[in-house]
Amino acid sequence: MKPGEPTSADLHVGSELVVRAIAGVPTIDAGQDLSEVIISGLAGTETELVDGDVMVLASKIVSRAEGCFVDLGGVTPSDTALHLAEEVDKDPRLVELILRESTGVSRKTTGALIVRHRLGFVSANAGIDASNAAPSSAPEGSGPWVLILPRDPDATAARLRAQLARHFSAEVGVIITDSWGRPFRRGTVGFALGVAGVPALWDRSGAVDRHGRVLEATVSALADSIAAAADLVAGQADEGRPLTLVRGLRFAPSDDSAQALLRDFKDDLYA
Amino acid sequence: MKPGEPTSADLHVGSELVVRAIAGVPTIDAGQDLSEVIISGLAGTETELVDGDVMVLASKIVSRAEGCFVDLGGVTPSDTALHLAEEVDKDPRLVELILRESTGVSRKTTGALIVRHRLGFVSANAGIDASNAAPSSAPEGSGPWVLILPRDPDATAARLRAQLARHFSAEVGVIITDSWGRPFRRGTVGFALGVAGVPALWDRSGAVDRHGRVLEATVSALADSIAAAADLVAGQADEGRPLTLVRGLRFAPSDDSAQALLRDFKDDLYA
Repeated sequence: MKPGEPTSADLHVGSELVVRAIAGVPTIDAGQDLSEVIISGLAGTETELVDGDVMVLASKIVSRAEGCFVDLGGVTPSDTALHLAEEVDKDPRLVELILRESTGVSRKTTGALIVRHRLGFVSANAGIDASNAAPSSAPEGSGPWVLILPRDPDATAARLRAQLARHFSAEVGVIITDSWGRPFRRGTVGFALGVAGVPALWDRSGAVDRHGRVLEATVSALADSIAAAADLVAGQADEGRPLTLVRGLRFAPSDDSAQALLRDFKDDLYA
Repeated sequence: MKPGEPTSADLHVGSELVVRAIAGVPTIDAGQDLSEVIISGLAGTETELVDGDVMVLASKIVSRAEGCFVDLGGVTPSDTALHLAEEVDKDPRLVELILRESTGVSRKTTGALIVRHRLGFVSANAGIDASNAAPSSAPEGSGPWVLILPRDPDATAARLRAQLARHFSAEVGVIITDSWGRPFRRGTVGFALGVAGVPALWDRSGAVDRHGRVLEATVSALADSIAAAADLVAGQADEGRPLTLVRGLRFAPSDDSAQALLRDFKDDLYA
């Protein structure tokens, strides 16, 4: 192999990616068909999906489309939630909801609970979102409203992937993302909550370096990297950029779900 | 504010980013001027840097240019390193070097030491790289060679930023990156080790949602997200894609360094 010549593992990614926010996405409400929203948004920019395209959706519009609105006015906190709420100085009804969405609390501090979410990942406050979180049909005087994460982002991603693949006759990927904080480092980045069609992990094992040595640490978190890239242009759903097209990847259709990205607690060296 | 209208905070990022690997970068050796390498690589693709462009460099070529090669044959392990090496089943000379590069060991397991690097971040094995890690001038029979991380990636990024800004008369950013594993999740992503010219953190505090509520969790790790995006196309330096251009960001020149991304251990809720 000549220096600079890509290995076969390198062929998963072209030399140029375009990360494009789809403009003009309307506010999404419960029951809306997101595949129609995506197809109509793409039509507005005269874009047809092609093989290797990945549509990235902010989890917020999935939550809205799936009606994951919760009126905290209707939530009754348990004794556990009441105690914990006092300890961390949060609304007890929100704490109750965080507990319902989680399988365990790993850390707590004023204003934040770090939990293992029912979907398996670790996040602050179970990813519950309190901004622009009311349904359009919310009655006067209701709320405060919050949005919980989609029930099954992998299933939603798979359904959308099938719909888009059929519509565009193309092998596409779909990733549903959220922005979270993370250990050791400041600031939020995008993470993949739901994955379909595109590999979640990009296993480069077996690729060799210029001297024939097998590369170490060769598994890239492809879906998380795509989520982080999309987050750069997506901003937050509040500003009307919940859909991002990532173009320029090359991948064989994959059965990976976002679960592939989760490390077992017992294997977690860093945590 | 109308729905879908970007807030001022949103103006930091255009609606489309291009992430482009610069082809044909040669193997770098100690003493090479990276600004010349970048300028020549860009010239090869007929690209002039413009305001808002960010050049992303894999830390490996910075290490090579700065001569951060270490011949393990010349490293004498301390007693501490010898004991630790036996415990985690690693080359004692490599363990010695990891300890020299670190201020503390936070976790250990077979094959890996999770350390706080002297530069402040948490990583496995102090980011020491054993593939394609020999200088071109390495004498026959020397080695095994490894590369340690650059001495001061922020300073290198700042110097390169100044050189590129002067050459192209443009307000550009420079980010030096590495790919690491992280807590809770499988696979590696790109992280920013050195930052110049571009904000490391993108503080969106004060931006309001459609209902006038101030957005929560509004600080994005801009430089880490750019690093993750670049990692998608960069592959590893071994395959000759150590330089990536990210185009389409809009930012006011920033004095941030990569240190802005480090969370104090005592404030770290997740760890």
